[in-house]
Amino acid sequence: MGTRALMTDLYQLTMGAGYFKHAEHQKRVSFELFVRRLPPDRRYLVFAGLETVLSYLRELSFTESQLAYLREVPGLRAAMSYDFVEFLRGFRFRGDVAAMPEGTVCFANEPMLRVTGTLFEAQLVETFLLSAINSETVIASKAARIVRAAQNASVLEFGTRRTSPEEAIASARAAFIAGFAGTSNVEAGYRHDIPVMGTAAHSWTMAHETEALAFERYLATFPDSSTMLVDTYDTLEGTRRAIKAGGSKLRGVRLDSGDLGTLSVAVRKLLDEAGLKQTKIVASGDLDEHKIAALRAANAPIDIYGVGTELVRSRDNPTLGGVYKLVHDHDTDRPVAKFSDSKASFPGVHQVFRKMRDGQADSDIVGTLEEFHVDSTPLLVDWMKDGKLVREIPSLAKLREIARAQLAALPGHLHELGPAKEGPAYPVKNSDALQALIQLVRDRELRTQA
Amino acid sequence: MGTRALMTDLYQLTMGAGYFKHAEHQKRVSFELFVRRLPPDRRYLVFAGLETVLSYLRELSFTESQLAYLREVPGLRAAMSYDFVEFLRGFRFRGDVAAMPEGTVCFANEPMLRVTGTLFEAQLVETFLLSAINSETVIASKAARIVRAAQNASVLEFGTRRTSPEEAIASARAAFIAGFAGTSNVEAGYRHDIPVMGTAAHSWTMAHETEALAFERYLATFPDSSTMLVDTYDTLEGTRRAIKAGGSKLRGVRLDSGDLGTLSVAVRKLLDEAGLKQTKIVASGDLDEHKIAALRAANAPIDIYGVGTELVRSRDNPTLGGVYKLVHDHDTDRPVAKFSDSKASFPGVHQVFRKMRDGQADSDIVGTLEEFHVDSTPLLVDWMKDGKLVREIPSLAKLREIARAQLAALPGHLHELGPAKEGPAYPVKNSDALQALIQLVRDRELRTQA
Repeated sequence: MGTRALMTDLYQLTMGAGYFKHAEHQKRVSFELFVRRLPPDRRYLVFAGLETVLSYLRELSFTESQLAYLREVPGLRAAMSYDFVEFLRGFRFRGDVAAMPEGTVCFANEPMLRVTGTLFEAQLVETFLLSAINSETVIASKAARIVRAAQNASVLEFGTRRTSPEEAIASARAAFIAGFAGTSNVEAGYRHDIPVMGTAAHSWTMAHETEALAFERYLATFPDSSTMLVDTYDTLEGTRRAIKAGGSKLRGVRLDSGDLGTLSVAVRKLLDEAGLKQTKIVASGDLDEHKIAALRAANAPIDIYGVGTELVRSRDNPTLGGVYKLVHDHDTDRPVAKFSDSKASFPGVHQVFRKMRDGQADSDIVGTLEEFHVDSTPLLVDWMKDGKLVREIPSLAKLREIARAQLAALPGHLHELGPAKEGPAYPVKNSDALQALIQLVRDRELRTQA
Repeated sequence: MGTRALMTDLYQLTMGAGYFKHAEHQKRVSFELFVRRLPPDRRYLVFAGLETVLSYLRELSFTESQLAYLREVPGLRAAMSYDFVEFLRGFRFRGDVAAMPEGTVCFANEPMLRVTGTLFEAQLVETFLLSAINSETVIASKAARIVRAAQNASVLEFGTRRTSPEEAIASARAAFIAGFAGTSNVEAGYRHDIPVMGTAAHSWTMAHETEALAFERYLATFPDSSTMLVDTYDTLEGTRRAIKAGGSKLRGVRLDSGDLGTLSVAVRKLLDEAGLKQTKIVASGDLDEHKIAALRAANAPIDIYGVGTELVRSRDNPTLGGVYKLVHDHDTDRPVAKFSDSKASFPGVHQVFRKMRDGQADSDIVGTLEEFHVDSTPLLVDWMKDGKLVREIPSLAKLREIARAQLAALPGHLHELGPAKEGPAYPVKNSDALQALIQLVRDRELRTQA
């Protein structure tokens, strides 16, 4: 417990110390988390990371060992007064959190999450919140594209070795929310009850004197659940050996190299000729949504796609630029915004309203908290009040259903895979009330800074 | 303890169960970890991740709760016999590990790490080893380029919010090994004693009624260590306010937006005119080695660069394709390799010999373990024997020195930042003995599979 309290940037603590020194640390404020623009190849995001955030906030506290360390940090030492150390010792997160449920489809300039609490607590948590939400949302957003490209074929998450050990687990979960059928990561299954699946590796085949022996022995171990990797030496020869070894018990074969389109047709033919109509073909090897779409378009008879690298560290968009901005000072009831350069933020506390038309998402309105829009659903809901959970954390099954339903309700063109600048963006506009507020605050800031 | 045992792909456990069933799990084998080719924009790698790996191996064991879970996994259940569960219950890693020290500069097709042990243990650990080494090596390798581009300016790691929480700490460590001066990640400082540094955020300024008041209060909190972020409203006006507020106490100013080249010149002029020759300029904002090199080439007077996104999730190379391959069966003294397609591996157990000439790295030879090459240093050293550490884990200071010395000894053209295909690659060749072994095994495999 409490061990994640230092997972933050030093400046969160130096600023916190500054607020404490000037007795401003209890000032009540709101921060909101959003992206300023969608990544170039994305038409939407799938929000993820909230469960990680809520778990962090609930256990947030400083251990004695951490406090002793902080007292020695050169850039912080000057502010580690007796009173501030005592304050940190008793610190717990007691703020409010509103957010979209994980699995929610969202867009640029829509707050995904809001923290309302003391200036100290709301500021301290910025780094961890961004880290969790950026890293999990980027995976869920990519995963949704991959699942869509695979159509009625299943997709498995195979990326653990291409990402860091702990992130691999969060990534398997995010991909599962967005529609993946399972993961090879056993810890993800253990922690989150995600179906874990796997086949065999080339090393299994290479560890045996012949490929035939390797297949026989694997099938002897798992008579009813063996998917054999057949491309260690020659894919078609390997398939024949797998058929011979497994017969009707052969659950599947996996192809991990070569021209998957041509090979899958030839492998399907061999399986069908042997009467193994039920045996599945699994394909893997640097697949992404574009390659999968091309294989589907060419009618490659692949039943299951395994995706790793291009999910967990996608080259087209390896990170998300989510930001977390102070939007309101409740003590003075003052909306706050930054207008310099391209890094603008919206003043005030917001809600996102999704307007539906004939079962399809029509447009989103970013408005102030008090607004009401007919035929629309507010996307942010309350999760914590005064540091306590006020809503049950949904099951993964529920989050998958949220993602599935929201993705299905998107206008079809948002599922195109090419550069997002081709074709219209999903309409997100500010409400009239928000627009008026922006103008008001901009005028005030210009006067203040003049 | 033991909680990382399930951080693996399911197939490692299904294969392990298969080996166990056929009494082959104790067969003594070697696996080696290497990359088949350098990423397109890399001329070298800086190896990292070994400490994470050794820590994992030393504590590797299954808890009762994990065993209970494994007995219910559909794809594994059939093999979870009483004997196998008992075997897992008593399992510890008792193999040998040889590897390059972290900070070692290395190249494609050079084994960075070798595991020799039972087939079960060597196979089980593959996923975690790849995960840790791929994710940390990719950071250290990028960091070395950034440090080089910054020349005599310092570089700070600011990437926590753009990567996942736990990976952020490993990334700060990897960047520090490769020459970064510090990190903003407090937990990285706490765990690894890396210098932690920071300035202030836009939110500090925005939380105060005026920028001047924000600066005054920060300086009142940290009279001797304040670096003020001056670009919230107008960078030059902000600089004037910081000068007015801090005077000779102003440690630094940070620019986070706009044209950093032009702004840094103007800000330096303001500082110098105020007599603040010692006040540092810190620059941040989507910087990478290319942008830093351009700023240096333009003589931008920037003393410290903060780098985040492009270090921790570099767009040019967000992951590393390290692989881990069975190379030798010691029970039958049989070198093993895979030759299919482009995914070849080298048979046998290897050492990498670095030949030096006039203090410069001249070329590397990948040879068999028994070879000796005059004027060359073997890069892999022993870390574990029979599951026990046999070498002290070097301090981070020592690892930094290894990286510094090896990077300095590289031929100058390897520090070019453009696409690696421009200019000669560093020479890595197989020894005559290895070449003969490859031919031998290839002939044998072709016969066996024919």
